[in-house]
Amino acid sequence: MIEDDALATHRQELRRGTAVLACLLILRRADYGYALLERLQGSGFDVDANTLYPLLRRLEKQGLLTSEWNTEESRPRKFYLTSADGMALADMLSADFTALHSALATLKEETR
Amino acid sequence: MIEDDALATHRQELRRGTAVLACLLILRRADYGYALLERLQGSGFDVDANTLYPLLRRLEKQGLLTSEWNTEESRPRKFYLTSADGMALADMLSADFTALHSALATLKEETR
Repeated sequence: MIEDDALATHRQELRRGTAVLACLLILRRADYGYALLERLQGSGFDVDANTLYPLLRRLEKQGLLTSEWNTEESRPRKFYLTSADGMALADMLSADFTALHSALATLKEETR
Repeated sequence: MIEDDALATHRQELRRGTAVLACLLILRRADYGYALLERLQGSGFDVDANTLYPLLRRLEKQGLLTSEWNTEESRPRKFYLTSADGMALADMLSADFTALHSALATLKEETR
């Protein structure tokens, strides 16, 4: 039996990088953290709030997202938007992911 | 401009989990570290020796690979082979990766 810890770590490592890409794609249209979280989970990205909020702050600090407070509604919310640099990174990660996908598909064929 | 550090980290995070999967697939047929490294690089997985060798030891410790010294040739070499648990993990990671691939494809459509 594979230990649960090892299993969880390997699965998490596989997912980690895709969460960044998913955020950058979704935030091409500005949205706030909680709505993004629901959108990610609904799309099959298993991210929790404790991971997502620090990630958003990190991406903003890196200039990949911009943010703005929306105070028009009763509850002020911070909206995030993917920056031009963020779009460029999304394109790059997307190309990397596609390349990994075909490399894995080829390997699976070859090692069957 | 995206900082090079941030860029490299995001790209590396996207690749990290797939290296494990690629090793488990390739090592369905026993092979030694250096041959595996060349095979990975030839298949488009950008892994270096400093990452691969500790990874192999970790996977062996987790029971996902087994190893055996081949001393028949002039230079003894440690051959690794994916275990039954390793095959099970490879199937799981493979299913996860396919799910992430379609989730990302859908997101790209929706956020175009």
